[in-house]
Amino acid sequence: MTRVLVNEVAPRDGLQMEQRFVPTHEKIAFVDALSDCGFAKIEVTSFTSARAIPALADAEVVMREIRRVPGVVYTALVPNLRGMERAIESRVDELNLVMSCSESHNVANLRMGRAQSLAQLLQVVREAGHGGVLCNVSLSCAFGCPFEGEVPVDEVARIALALMAGGAAGITLCDTTGMADPLGVRRLLDRLHGTLAIDSTTVHLHDTRGMALANALAALESGASRFDASCAGLGGCPYAPGASGNVNTETLVHMFQCMGHATGIDLARLLRVAARVPALVARALPNALVAAGPRDALHPLPAS
Amino acid sequence: MTRVLVNEVAPRDGLQMEQRFVPTHEKIAFVDALSDCGFAKIEVTSFTSARAIPALADAEVVMREIRRVPGVVYTALVPNLRGMERAIESRVDELNLVMSCSESHNVANLRMGRAQSLAQLLQVVREAGHGGVLCNVSLSCAFGCPFEGEVPVDEVARIALALMAGGAAGITLCDTTGMADPLGVRRLLDRLHGTLAIDSTTVHLHDTRGMALANALAALESGASRFDASCAGLGGCPYAPGASGNVNTETLVHMFQCMGHATGIDLARLLRVAARVPALVARALPNALVAAGPRDALHPLPAS
Repeated sequence: MTRVLVNEVAPRDGLQMEQRFVPTHEKIAFVDALSDCGFAKIEVTSFTSARAIPALADAEVVMREIRRVPGVVYTALVPNLRGMERAIESRVDELNLVMSCSESHNVANLRMGRAQSLAQLLQVVREAGHGGVLCNVSLSCAFGCPFEGEVPVDEVARIALALMAGGAAGITLCDTTGMADPLGVRRLLDRLHGTLAIDSTTVHLHDTRGMALANALAALESGASRFDASCAGLGGCPYAPGASGNVNTETLVHMFQCMGHATGIDLARLLRVAARVPALVARALPNALVAAGPRDALHPLPAS
Repeated sequence: MTRVLVNEVAPRDGLQMEQRFVPTHEKIAFVDALSDCGFAKIEVTSFTSARAIPALADAEVVMREIRRVPGVVYTALVPNLRGMERAIESRVDELNLVMSCSESHNVANLRMGRAQSLAQLLQVVREAGHGGVLCNVSLSCAFGCPFEGEVPVDEVARIALALMAGGAAGITLCDTTGMADPLGVRRLLDRLHGTLAIDSTTVHLHDTRGMALANALAALESGASRFDASCAGLGGCPYAPGASGNVNTETLVHMFQCMGHATGIDLARLLRVAARVPALVARALPNALVAAGPRDALHPLPAS
């Protein structure tokens, strides 16, 4: 039995792309409902510019108004020093920084090369550390790049090591565009053993090609015990037909629980939260587990 | 590297539940398109009564009119001796019989106990054998029963062994209502090693709770090398909102190919067939892989 720590990222990674602006009080209620489910961390919002991500322009209000449940780490995405200042003012427990393992993806998304991103993030890590605030760094395209294809595991290891050496508290390996397969997941995690402490490493999967849960299984069996996941599978781009979001939290938790692993999550409660997500974002979200219920919810025998 | 054999079941297990009656010539075109994709087997139709499954009332015509590609085994579901006679008259290569590992599910679905089903199927196996026609038997609820919950692996082994001893050419372990988890898959396959030849055992998964592909990974790694799968994930009940069908063939093949296993499937061709399935059944089918394309389909760099 493994103790699996689950980080819920729907309020940030999920809502940031939604067409509907979710009203601030609904965001707060969503985070509060998630807070009662037993997550290790919740990524609440993003301290980016309101112009870049209008969906999360209310970051300060959301962080201030949520009910903080003891034991839950409330994190937020932070792109730079300015974001760090805002996040720390809003008493974020831990910052989540981001850069890419792929040079072309870093340039396309962050408009600078990886070396410059790395230098800037190390500065944020140092400054945040002065205030006693820990930083995790999410590494995009750790399992492949939509422009370059394969991303060498040695590149991922090099960047991760530089960040950890510079004081980062943890690294998240992100399969940003759903290019991971179970073998690639094992290859990267095996390579990082010895470089990174496995308990400071999080795996962040997307279901773009339907492989997210299989990849989670492979990651668990390679020693990973921290997972990002998104309630109702929110995330990804709602305008690309069929493009799926992050690995679905309730499906991940259900699988791990079926296998006898401890997640600390109240699945019945989480399923009720997940069932309300389509109304939150005002669009249909196919959700097999919400429709079917957990495997131990048996059916009565037919009457005849 | 494993040589994985994939059986396409959409024309039978997929179409049998669809609201739209797919016109016979469209069924034939669908099977013909699948025949060019490289499958080991295709389950073409079902020789049940037209009253029981009106969607497949055209079994004889479909079997007669499809183009038979050398190397592909064309199978059909057969519930009883009458079905066997019809199937053999229609020159089905191999019969697929069915009973349940769970007493209550067998009674609910087949209106008789398992002992009676077993006796009837053994008779079909014998009679078909006289004509030189092989029978596979699909065992429903091998990984759990929606009425009883756990199904003891020893029960599955007992039934499978009785069928193989009686001349069945192969056994398919069916996760009829999506109750399998990776641990349960391994437990059953490990138990059956030594009882059944692994190369006469097929794994048939449903995605009812989103675990189908993770279960397929667990099965492959437990030695399974034959999988049923359904193009575009057809199957299950279209009237239960969110209830998913069989494991999606193209997603299964894509994962195995990403992992370096040989499937013999032309994935690009299969994706084109899958993209046409929503039109065939006149309903939307979310299909992440069809939308995203395979992982090696890279994107051009943004212009700026």
